[in-house]
Amino acid sequence: MTQPLIEWLPVTATQSHRATLNPGARCRLGQRGASPRGFPAVPGPVQLPPPVLAEVLRVSAARVSWCPSESRVTGGQKVKRALQGPRGRNRTPSVVVLRFPEELKAAFIGKKGKKEGPVFALQLSGGQTLPIPPVVLAELGKEPEKPTVCFYGHLDVQPAAQADGWLTAPFVLTEVDGKLYGRGATDNKGPVLAWINAVSTFRALEEDLPVNVKFVLEGMEEAGSVALEELVKREKDGFFSNVDCIVISDNLWLSQRPALIYGMRGNSYFTVEVKCRDQDFHSGTFGGILSEPMADLVALLGSLTNASGRILVPGIYDQVAPVTEEERQLYSATDLDLAEFRHSTQVKKFLFDTKEEVLMHLWRYPSLSIHGIEGAFAGPGTKTVIPGQVTGKFSIRLVPHMEAPVVETQVKQYLQRIFSERNSSNQMAVSMVLGLRPWIADMKDSHYLAAKRAIKTGGTT
Amino acid sequence: MTQPLIEWLPVTATQSHRATLNPGARCRLGQRGASPRGFPAVPGPVQLPPPVLAEVLRVSAARVSWCPSESRVTGGQKVKRALQGPRGRNRTPSVVVLRFPEELKAAFIGKKGKKEGPVFALQLSGGQTLPIPPVVLAELGKEPEKPTVCFYGHLDVQPAAQADGWLTAPFVLTEVDGKLYGRGATDNKGPVLAWINAVSTFRALEEDLPVNVKFVLEGMEEAGSVALEELVKREKDGFFSNVDCIVISDNLWLSQRPALIYGMRGNSYFTVEVKCRDQDFHSGTFGGILSEPMADLVALLGSLTNASGRILVPGIYDQVAPVTEEERQLYSATDLDLAEFRHSTQVKKFLFDTKEEVLMHLWRYPSLSIHGIEGAFAGPGTKTVIPGQVTGKFSIRLVPHMEAPVVETQVKQYLQRIFSERNSSNQMAVSMVLGLRPWIADMKDSHYLAAKRAIKTGGTT
Repeated sequence: MTQPLIEWLPVTATQSHRATLNPGARCRLGQRGASPRGFPAVPGPVQLPPPVLAEVLRVSAARVSWCPSESRVTGGQKVKRALQGPRGRNRTPSVVVLRFPEELKAAFIGKKGKKEGPVFALQLSGGQTLPIPPVVLAELGKEPEKPTVCFYGHLDVQPAAQADGWLTAPFVLTEVDGKLYGRGATDNKGPVLAWINAVSTFRALEEDLPVNVKFVLEGMEEAGSVALEELVKREKDGFFSNVDCIVISDNLWLSQRPALIYGMRGNSYFTVEVKCRDQDFHSGTFGGILSEPMADLVALLGSLTNASGRILVPGIYDQVAPVTEEERQLYSATDLDLAEFRHSTQVKKFLFDTKEEVLMHLWRYPSLSIHGIEGAFAGPGTKTVIPGQVTGKFSIRLVPHMEAPVVETQVKQYLQRIFSERNSSNQMAVSMVLGLRPWIADMKDSHYLAAKRAIKTGGTT
Repeated sequence: MTQPLIEWLPVTATQSHRATLNPGARCRLGQRGASPRGFPAVPGPVQLPPPVLAEVLRVSAARVSWCPSESRVTGGQKVKRALQGPRGRNRTPSVVVLRFPEELKAAFIGKKGKKEGPVFALQLSGGQTLPIPPVVLAELGKEPEKPTVCFYGHLDVQPAAQADGWLTAPFVLTEVDGKLYGRGATDNKGPVLAWINAVSTFRALEEDLPVNVKFVLEGMEEAGSVALEELVKREKDGFFSNVDCIVISDNLWLSQRPALIYGMRGNSYFTVEVKCRDQDFHSGTFGGILSEPMADLVALLGSLTNASGRILVPGIYDQVAPVTEEERQLYSATDLDLAEFRHSTQVKKFLFDTKEEVLMHLWRYPSLSIHGIEGAFAGPGTKTVIPGQVTGKFSIRLVPHMEAPVVETQVKQYLQRIFSERNSSNQMAVSMVLGLRPWIADMKDSHYLAAKRAIKTGGTT
């Protein structure tokens, strides 16, 4: 559920206006405390964006309330906690409050006086229903001769507490040395503000907007954009019917240079369960006479890749699009200082030594990651358990022209063969629980050319 | 810390008077709710023990308070909770209350009017100190011409709640069809009572006890017998100085026939940590360019055993005592219905097909079990994390004449070699965090012969 939304929407083009990242420089990230371990690193600090945006961001920063919703959670109870706030304090479930600039208020009231988009409710496992933060839909201008650009953004954030190592209060936007700090400054409130203020600036200067503008702003992105897909389907022939292009400013810049994102790997997420019986065993009483599920599982997981990270599932690379010469040149031209990248990510050594290889293995080749094991002993200290059933979890990042159903078959057949060779008396089951297609856009599309031109005109930091 | 205490004490002999087990027949075990997953199955029901003991057990059962202490916990906070009771209800930390039969009270007051043994305190991580339940020391008779027998038992239990599936309230001793049910009925209150009542019966019949009797009864066995070792050391030249033999009735019978335990496997518990960096990664952003710690770890864990359960660490079997012909005959003579054993343990198939092989691999050969992984994603659902550092946990059951330090060196060298062959850029560290020696007694020792005779005289169910 951490896939970019881009895959859910009828995307024509996408553009990254995310502020330059400076990870670790000013504050540590929410790795402790309320923040579940294993979240992707969400950079905290934000450098000043290009001059024009910087100005409007500075002026209107305080207009967005900094809402500390727990996020990227799964399961009803956690979502409930999420909506109640990060530290158990009871808060109103619907917490997203945008104070829009006066001159734009009209836009967000929208047609037929509705202030908010449809309100969805979340069905919890216990039968309880919780409303989720409303998705804000807004439009400005309906001139049929102009193209309609829809800006997507989200207002929820990863959890953060000052105790996690922040140098400033994470939910108070604080200016230090000309930079603005606060949870969500880059992901994704700052970029949302930038778009709102860009529109606002046109208004203030009494200049005509060259496009019709729509906004879709949600509050559940960090929890998997619950209900957004449903909203898009519902409003397909309504709000979204005349949208020509959607702009998402929720991606990363790789270096100090602005980036235009034109592709995204997909993902096929697998579980592999090995079961002897429901209950666990004690290793003192049973160790030595069982085909232990953990032994089977580590053998299965260990068969997936070699030490160089190459996926060993037969046929998996057959679907990968061949690298063209033009593509090679693109990677060579991409701005990345490998030494600096290693340093800033605190990785001693990558699997590859050249910029081109690193980028291609990040962006255009599949990769397989083992995420963990459910059902085994995962706590601190020692426990002499033989887990009775365990579930390994891994996923394969997909690239064009890989198809999740094909990958599913290949993985299942391969693991079944490995398991058969062990002659284990346990039961094994492999499932693909998520299959998201890769996405790639045409960089020569007019939208991309326009975005490229705009960035060059706007300048960089 | 789940090793039998037998390894901590200067044991001369041991004897199992545990009531016959009938797992699953009358109640389910505490596998859900308050009971942490992975506990060894602790059978609940108890059949009536041999006639004489049955009588005294029936009469005096209510004399032991059924104390629901949380147990087999590690870590300060959990122990704190343990001492406060299973459901967060505040209770006095020192919960072990024995109401001894009137005629034995004098014994438990002990020398110098002390009612209890030394009280130890538990140092919690936060600097807090908690008293642990006192270890009860008692003695009866000091005649120098008689041998002194010391009975060890424990009064704490695994957690249990009726919601876990018990058919009777777990902390109310309940008689159903002539059998007594209650948490701890077999582990270990019933056996403790049996000894107390045996002594009590001698008194009631005004018969002279043939031995001097001592009791050492603790309340922290399920939490790793915290402080018991220290107590034994302190009282080595005091309370324990004239003890000729210690009897522990805290073991299992394999079948319906009484069992005399004469050996116990030891354990060497290992952690193997693989680290790339402190923080986790997101597989979408980093998948493909890292030597992923989980890939290294499953390779390391997968190299430890083959599919037949054989340990692949070179030299590990060199220290194992050769099987003698006499020993073979013992295994042949041991009462075990393999089909029934499979059925009652819900295991479809063991690694071995004969009773002798199963018993020997349970009792006299080493075994290796992988317990789990700390630091990876262990929850339900999906998460696309690449764990930044992970720690695998496994242990090897040791048998005579294996020595933990030798095993430690063998395992470390082997894993270092496997890891080197992967040429990973991660850091790896192997530690042996626990090294408990195996124990074996001489079955021809006079104590064993006496125990054997006593069981034959007493009869079985």
